[in-house]
Amino acid sequence: MSGRVKGFRFAGVYSGVKADDALDLGLIVADEPAVASAVFTRNRVRAAPVVVSERRLKSGLCQAILVNSGNANACTGKQGQQAALALTRVAAAALRVPIALVVPASTGVIGVPLARDDIERAIPSLVADLSETGATRFARAIMTTDRGPKLARAEVKVGRTMCRVLGIAKGAGMIHPNMATTLAFVVTDVPLRRATLSRLLRQSTEVTFNRATVDGDTSTNDSIYVLASGAATSRVIDEKSAAGRRFAAALTEVLESLAKQVVADGEGAEHLVRIEVLGARTNTDAVQIARTIAGSQLVKTALHGCDPNWGRILAAAGRSGARFNPDHVSMKIGSVPIFERGTPVMTPRTELKAAVTMKRGEYVITVTVGAGRGLGHYWTCDLGHEYVRINADYRT
Amino acid sequence: MSGRVKGFRFAGVYSGVKADDALDLGLIVADEPAVASAVFTRNRVRAAPVVVSERRLKSGLCQAILVNSGNANACTGKQGQQAALALTRVAAAALRVPIALVVPASTGVIGVPLARDDIERAIPSLVADLSETGATRFARAIMTTDRGPKLARAEVKVGRTMCRVLGIAKGAGMIHPNMATTLAFVVTDVPLRRATLSRLLRQSTEVTFNRATVDGDTSTNDSIYVLASGAATSRVIDEKSAAGRRFAAALTEVLESLAKQVVADGEGAEHLVRIEVLGARTNTDAVQIARTIAGSQLVKTALHGCDPNWGRILAAAGRSGARFNPDHVSMKIGSVPIFERGTPVMTPRTELKAAVTMKRGEYVITVTVGAGRGLGHYWTCDLGHEYVRINADYRT
Repeated sequence: MSGRVKGFRFAGVYSGVKADDALDLGLIVADEPAVASAVFTRNRVRAAPVVVSERRLKSGLCQAILVNSGNANACTGKQGQQAALALTRVAAAALRVPIALVVPASTGVIGVPLARDDIERAIPSLVADLSETGATRFARAIMTTDRGPKLARAEVKVGRTMCRVLGIAKGAGMIHPNMATTLAFVVTDVPLRRATLSRLLRQSTEVTFNRATVDGDTSTNDSIYVLASGAATSRVIDEKSAAGRRFAAALTEVLESLAKQVVADGEGAEHLVRIEVLGARTNTDAVQIARTIAGSQLVKTALHGCDPNWGRILAAAGRSGARFNPDHVSMKIGSVPIFERGTPVMTPRTELKAAVTMKRGEYVITVTVGAGRGLGHYWTCDLGHEYVRINADYRT
Repeated sequence: MSGRVKGFRFAGVYSGVKADDALDLGLIVADEPAVASAVFTRNRVRAAPVVVSERRLKSGLCQAILVNSGNANACTGKQGQQAALALTRVAAAALRVPIALVVPASTGVIGVPLARDDIERAIPSLVADLSETGATRFARAIMTTDRGPKLARAEVKVGRTMCRVLGIAKGAGMIHPNMATTLAFVVTDVPLRRATLSRLLRQSTEVTFNRATVDGDTSTNDSIYVLASGAATSRVIDEKSAAGRRFAAALTEVLESLAKQVVADGEGAEHLVRIEVLGARTNTDAVQIARTIAGSQLVKTALHGCDPNWGRILAAAGRSGARFNPDHVSMKIGSVPIFERGTPVMTPRTELKAAVTMKRGEYVITVTVGAGRGLGHYWTCDLGHEYVRINADYRT
């Protein structure tokens, strides 16, 4: 599958914000104003670029997204607001598009003034770098502690035309709802109305990025942007049509892939684990139990040690606030039963099998809490020494 | 101050539950049935000894507490219940007290059947070990990953008599409300009514153990027991009298000291940090903000790295759910201002001063979020490599 999506170009260059010569400035540009929507962090402390983006996207249109990494431009006061405004002004002028159609995004350290002059000087070379095949360079330019670029693609047939959905994300620490603590950008050449796009984005985010945790911390900068150029075909698709449902599935698939990549790349993580809860009274209860297990430091260190410590998992479920009877709880690690109806059932042989499963890069822990119909899941990762090393030293 | 409290004896021996010959079985005995109260974990998954203790303490009286460490007797099904009942029966017989006045407590690994026979065999030597000066041996016998025994003492004048309050606790990981994830035992020779004791215990717990976190995990076994022998003087004290207020203060002092010792001994912790929140709309908001900061993995790793990362502190406050205006926030580390009215104010010189403060064993971070009257605090510790090492390997 090609990395191209009709109507979009991408760029990534080095501006000088990062200390190590890595790409740190990215740009997505639509040939024409694209239908646009976004979801933003619910943190009360919001970075300047989030405030500016939210205001500008009220128009429902966007033509360019300017993203810097290495500095979040958060907790930087008026100066930070002015930097975000000034940089989008320079980008708009270089691209010859209205400033109202350019939105900023930032990720990196909080509370340090943005090196605005360095970024301004890099904008001409950034614009010169734009190309239809530049998505991976863009993906590299928005990385912080990420181990690699994160992209996901899907195709959607609209009439006889094959359309594309391309997602690009960054994020390794500070991952938790609400919502995804990360930056994600999705572009598609499917023609959609704004209201449709907004609704589908919220729905897809809820079951993907809002079901993923690395460390329970929500950032000041979390944002997911979606831009639809409509360049692939002229037929605007309806949410309830077959094509609309296919697009919704493709968008969820792309966001799910990105969310999993983000958790798998959780700082220092070695295991991507899906916590699957079944048999709860309601779906809300099931997600609440899955979230609490997924967020438990003790569970996450046990995952790191490949230790099938069902006791910590049950203790986490028990403090989730959801109602269930501990005597009705059963648990499996992969396909290995380790706890049944309130009692541990591991034998030395099954304990070994569970430990083997836990050495895998990705696996599922299933927790059945009763006979109810409620179900829900959460993606998490292990908590290891690398997380401590990265985060005890990050700023200095 | 002597370790004795009139009317109580203590013991600690090795029964064989722990692998390394350390003391693992403790006993507190009152000469006569004591007025008793307790608060227990709010986790839905409750260990067998919690269930048995809660039921027996409904009488308001208790004469002996049997505590084993190394095994929590949690998630052990019917077998676990039977073990708790059988062991208290053996202890009651050896002590010649009614079984209804003997309560069990356990701490350690979850989900492994208790080595009931080993403990049973050790009970005669445990009873033989009882002495008025055995509190430290008892404190050692209830340790798990604790680096040392935790005791706290206070005196209360009732009439012309000097009475005593002695507290003993264990706990290093799985510390978080509700309520204190730990075991704590307080004995006093002050004469009190049950209702008074229960009310004061709840109040003191709320502002001490319920304001302390190591890792956000609440255990299946958390319990705080208080026994009042009344052996020091015959005058039963009233809650609202001067002596009653002095006793309330002494109980809070003892529980505060134990809670701080537990957090300071958080697995691998090097720093005990008080998060003080001022200027919130309500006390509830202030505690909520303090709790979220105290529980943030990113804040706790920054504390470990002695990094005055106000950005993470603010981001945590922002996701606490409490309402405040980020532009009105100010922060100090110790006495060093680092953030004022929404803007970072650190200079290289003050950054150095802040880093020096953060190298201390104990310090305060003050976060003022507005001009409201709400205030509240939380005790936390840093998250370091030792926490990961201990918890990734704990069970195996």
